[in-house]
Amino acid sequence: MDSLENLKARLREFAAVRDWEQFHSPKNLAMALIVEAAELVEHFQWLTEEQSGDLPSKKLAEVEHELADIQIYLIRLADKLNLDLLKAVDAKIALNELKYPVEKVRGSAKKYTEFDEGC
Amino acid sequence: MDSLENLKARLREFAAVRDWEQFHSPKNLAMALIVEAAELVEHFQWLTEEQSGDLPSKKLAEVEHELADIQIYLIRLADKLNLDLLKAVDAKIALNELKYPVEKVRGSAKKYTEFDEGC
Amino acid sequence: MDSLENLKARLREFAAVRDWEQFHSPKNLAMALIVEAAELVEHFQWLTEEQSGDLPSKKLAEVEHELADIQIYLIRLADKLNLDLLKAVDAKIALNELKYPVEKVRGSAKKYTEFDEGC
Amino acid sequence: MDSLENLKARLREFAAVRDWEQFHSPKNLAMALIVEAAELVEHFQWLTEEQSGDLPSKKLAEVEHELADIQIYLIRLADKLNLDLLKAVDAKIALNELKYPVEKVRGSAKKYTEFDEGC
Repeated sequence: MDSLENLKARLREFAAVRDWEQFHSPKNLAMALIVEAAELVEHFQWLTEEQSGDLPSKKLAEVEHELADIQIYLIRLADKLNLDLLKAVDAKIALNELKYPVEKVRGSAKKYTEFDEGC
Repeated sequence: MDSLENLKARLREFAAVRDWEQFHSPKNLAMALIVEAAELVEHFQWLTEEQSGDLPSKKLAEVEHELADIQIYLIRLADKLNLDLLKAVDAKIALNELKYPVEKVRGSAKKYTEFDEGC
Repeated sequence: MDSLENLKARLREFAAVRDWEQFHSPKNLAMALIVEAAELVEHFQWLTEEQSGDLPSKKLAEVEHELADIQIYLIRLADKLNLDLLKAVDAKIALNELKYPVEKVRGSAKKYTEFDEGC
Repeated sequence: MDSLENLKARLREFAAVRDWEQFHSPKNLAMALIVEAAELVEHFQWLTEEQSGDLPSKKLAEVEHELADIQIYLIRLADKLNLDLLKAVDAKIALNELKYPVEKVRGSAKKYTEFDEGC
């Protein structure tokens, strides 16, 4: 089974043999990533929240491709910036645990909304 | 070291103990993901491509947090939809290899642009 | 009262006196626009559809600012590309009328979703 | 020639006769808007800044349609929220004039970047 490390190497090779590294500045990769994120959003824009959790299999397969595309650009971007995605997530979860202590936020939609809003 | 599998479990737990699962419909998670993607884009919007590849360390640390946030929502979304991110990427790379054969696209900016444009 | 034409002139002047034209390539302006669009999305991401139509006045005022920011970048971008926004919308509505004839799409959520999906 | 006011009325009618108002919650319209913004970004993602200011006419026509789509959803959203786009922009420009005084920001890329970054 592939790991993020393997996929990073494969994607690096994929770009190199096609001479596409020249297009893969972090600026451009960030744009490509948000375009893929929007293709994901497009699948859900007219669905109710409930429908979004119960997709027909054809649509689910399309959504799977969008998730893959986002993950691909995320891996490429981290690679170009010399960052480790798993470590970054690990550190961010630790930060979020401090920022949103269970006893303060539990069961409160209002607080959730407020916490996440703004910057 | 954490794997995507571990992170998935930690994030599921993180949401569960805070009673936040109620907000995490795929529709809402897709919105949250694109908001994080835009925070990434924001770091690069006024930089040249060259500057985007040579970030000062403070900015790089901020970008690292944005990548983590995107990865976090990607993991959550895949979890809610019962999809395997690594498998999805693996399949997508195989597809892209068929779609963009090296001999047809190598060294051609024009072709790159055309291939990726449109839908 | 301001018109789009007046606002275009004011925004052009605003950038010129600050020597900001150098940053306003269409590529950069498109990035800035999507960043503002995401700040709009952020206000709605954890709300139900119903809540999104009944915002408290403080939030509504924030949303108003986001709409303004999007409109500002849209005007700037159209100006840089020498395009007329009102004409463009006029032509697009005409196109949409052909694409979505009332008798074919009326009252069908399913059709709406299908029409708008994909590319 | 159409004004924003006229276009608002036409778009309201367009949705009403198709029975599409049911889909046009502010939440959904914000999603649709960012999807259109991403279709705009997609046109520029692999271009240099210079190329983005000198589009071939076919591509320019496509970009014009994307601008129209963004404007359409912006008008719809403002209509649903009972906001006046032109007034909102007018107020935002006044705010920006206070926030970015000419003498403080003129000719400084560094300051521009800092001002616009963060939240």
